[in-house]
Amino acid sequence: MQFPSPVSIQWIAELINAKLIGDGSATGINEIHKVEKGDLVFVDHPKYYDKCINSAATFIIINKAVNVPEGKALLIVDNPFEAYCKIVDHFRPFEPCSKNISDSAVVGEGTFIYPNSFIGNHVSVGKNCIIYPNVSIMDHCIIGNNVIIQSGTVIGSNAFYYNTKKDRELWYKKMPDCGRVIIEDFVEIGAGCTIDRGVSHDTIIGKGTKMDNMIHIGHDTVLGKNCLLAAQVGIAGVVTLKDGVTLWGQVGVSKTLTIGENAVIYGQSGVGGDVEGGKAYLGSPILEAKEKSRELVWVKRIPELWEKVMGK
Amino acid sequence: MQFPSPVSIQWIAELINAKLIGDGSATGINEIHKVEKGDLVFVDHPKYYDKCINSAATFIIINKAVNVPEGKALLIVDNPFEAYCKIVDHFRPFEPCSKNISDSAVVGEGTFIYPNSFIGNHVSVGKNCIIYPNVSIMDHCIIGNNVIIQSGTVIGSNAFYYNTKKDRELWYKKMPDCGRVIIEDFVEIGAGCTIDRGVSHDTIIGKGTKMDNMIHIGHDTVLGKNCLLAAQVGIAGVVTLKDGVTLWGQVGVSKTLTIGENAVIYGQSGVGGDVEGGKAYLGSPILEAKEKSRELVWVKRIPELWEKVMGK
Amino acid sequence: MQFPSPVSIQWIAELINAKLIGDGSATGINEIHKVEKGDLVFVDHPKYYDKCINSAATFIIINKAVNVPEGKALLIVDNPFEAYCKIVDHFRPFEPCSKNISDSAVVGEGTFIYPNSFIGNHVSVGKNCIIYPNVSIMDHCIIGNNVIIQSGTVIGSNAFYYNTKKDRELWYKKMPDCGRVIIEDFVEIGAGCTIDRGVSHDTIIGKGTKMDNMIHIGHDTVLGKNCLLAAQVGIAGVVTLKDGVTLWGQVGVSKTLTIGENAVIYGQSGVGGDVEGGKAYLGSPILEAKEKSRELVWVKRIPELWEKVMGK
Repeated sequence: MQFPSPVSIQWIAELINAKLIGDGSATGINEIHKVEKGDLVFVDHPKYYDKCINSAATFIIINKAVNVPEGKALLIVDNPFEAYCKIVDHFRPFEPCSKNISDSAVVGEGTFIYPNSFIGNHVSVGKNCIIYPNVSIMDHCIIGNNVIIQSGTVIGSNAFYYNTKKDRELWYKKMPDCGRVIIEDFVEIGAGCTIDRGVSHDTIIGKGTKMDNMIHIGHDTVLGKNCLLAAQVGIAGVVTLKDGVTLWGQVGVSKTLTIGENAVIYGQSGVGGDVEGGKAYLGSPILEAKEKSRELVWVKRIPELWEKVMGK
Repeated sequence: MQFPSPVSIQWIAELINAKLIGDGSATGINEIHKVEKGDLVFVDHPKYYDKCINSAATFIIINKAVNVPEGKALLIVDNPFEAYCKIVDHFRPFEPCSKNISDSAVVGEGTFIYPNSFIGNHVSVGKNCIIYPNVSIMDHCIIGNNVIIQSGTVIGSNAFYYNTKKDRELWYKKMPDCGRVIIEDFVEIGAGCTIDRGVSHDTIIGKGTKMDNMIHIGHDTVLGKNCLLAAQVGIAGVVTLKDGVTLWGQVGVSKTLTIGENAVIYGQSGVGGDVEGGKAYLGSPILEAKEKSRELVWVKRIPELWEKVMGK
Repeated sequence: MQFPSPVSIQWIAELINAKLIGDGSATGINEIHKVEKGDLVFVDHPKYYDKCINSAATFIIINKAVNVPEGKALLIVDNPFEAYCKIVDHFRPFEPCSKNISDSAVVGEGTFIYPNSFIGNHVSVGKNCIIYPNVSIMDHCIIGNNVIIQSGTVIGSNAFYYNTKKDRELWYKKMPDCGRVIIEDFVEIGAGCTIDRGVSHDTIIGKGTKMDNMIHIGHDTVLGKNCLLAAQVGIAGVVTLKDGVTLWGQVGVSKTLTIGENAVIYGQSGVGGDVEGGKAYLGSPILEAKEKSRELVWVKRIPELWEKVMGK
């Protein structure tokens, strides 16, 4: 999340009661997957100190004094996760809305919104859209022009992202999210889909992409232009689909990976790592489709092999 | 879609600015999967000319003058897809509805509709139904008697069907749909399901069929009587399930295929082609269950075979 | 279901027009999976007579006079299923609700309920909860404190549970359900989930458990504390997840089984039987993850084996 204007790091240090080493002004806050120059970030485990210190972020909330490169600053606190939450909650407090369409929402000309849909605070919906009944568009999301969203779909549900510690009564503590969902022009989203907002950045559906029903898109995931997703596809968080990717029905995609331009993934396949564009894939775990097809043939030859080696 | 009454083909030719060869009255319009005698149909790729010309359709919107059998007529235009869309839009214009239950909807005696459900234009709901909260039943759908629809379900979402051309900025253009969903008597549909309307014909759920939660049914798909579908099943478009078919949880079914009477498909299986009735199937891609079970045993024997052939 | 107070078995016998052998007071009614002492239960097929007679239940609705252990009673009727339904319908009649929040619902302090959500009869929602838009919480369900339920989720949809007889026109007759859903404190449930009520007992989500989007939980299933379920997981009925279980995306779990404490099931796996805790599993059908990984390697070695045995 970018702050509305740069915030003095001394002021932040006071807010979270941190010992400050360094100075400057923070322009935003992000979790480690999405940091930019000028950002606040947090780290609480020595295993990730290096990654965090050497990331693009400028201000590091940490539980130990460490050496940092020139131009970076440390905010030292006992519990960096809690400090991060406090900053996010300050800039994005829970803001209830009791109306179907919030007074702070903006809806473009020529857009029709059916009954029983909810448009939250600071939402922007473009021109010539159709929002079917029982859709929920949560706070801060941005919908482009000529977008169609079918019934029952949810845009901007919370990121599924938790701070995990198994030595306390409640293992999982919710990471408050301050990211958005951005739906670009000419996107069509089917019925019963769920698109989570980014933890601290944006989930983006690229121009002209078409999604069938009951598709789940995780936090901070970015879909390119002209992608085609069939029903019941599930994509985890922080995934990148380049332009022109096709996913057939019930495909599952693991987190933090990239699918190359114009790749095609056949139905029910499971994508566990990066895949190159321009090819077709199949299986769970996936292989290139022609390789997987050969494998299926080889499996059918085992009995013949057995008979040759072992006899009848 | 059948027209309310036959329409002079000269009138249609004027509407879409076509050169007309032949005459007569069209009784309806359908895309190629579902054409009947008297129908208008369109074709824009030479690869499909023959299929289209020799289909049951009587009036062919096409981008070239070709020979047609006796009794058929041609409507020649530069862009047959756009012409098709124009006719559909004329007979099924977008008709917004700002009420929870449209004034043109008909609801039978003894039916209870919970709050926050939406019943669109020209919908008919039969007698003694229960429509739970947050259900959306879109325009022109027909619900029989003694039907139960659980919360959050969507009946009549748009078909996921696009005209594709990868040489323009927007690859996918929505095919406007004019089909319906027909739910027969004694059908029960779980929570969070989505049933797409037909592109130009009807999606049908047969009498006494029971569907669990989060099931997706594609456009123009026809389910027989007394089918049983477990949760998270996904069925693509233009599929036929004969009577008494059972699909277990998370089964995926590809488009334009037929599953025979009383077939049973076990959980997570993927059906990629026609399957005979009266048998049980398993796997992705599926095999007959007993064959698949044997295959799983063969795979486990590879190490033994390896040791025999290759040594330890 | 427990009755509000014990009910004379003579009164029940009259209600269902049964021949009574024995006496006493029934404290509740349950289907065979969940019976307790003092319960009524029904059985209509000789194959299940023994299981039912020797269950914890005290009062057996049956279609034949049989010997029962000391202290049990029989209620003999022609159609035990219909008799069971009659009793359930008497104690849990269909009770329509035309308001977004029923007058008999109780909502705790500090809880915010967004527009277009439905809270049914006799529902209890605890303190400091957030119920997002377009959520449906059906009759008799109990939501704890500090619970978050994202948009479009359905709590307490009907159990998918039918009496099946293939020699009548309608094969499947709905078993009326009288169970509840109980969501314990600090549970978070994603968008577009569906949690079915118990047939006669309770579906329970344990304290601190976190569920992502589009998860289906079947009737009478019990999730332990601190479980973590990723998107599009489906769990059938009468399943037990012990504490600390993790299910990755699109996992499917079959009915009436138990997953042990701290087990981890990787994405798209299919769980068909009980699995021990403390281990990781993979595949459909699942194996221990390391065993499945070895199997995938063995399959890739078939061509080498073939060449050695058969020649090029």
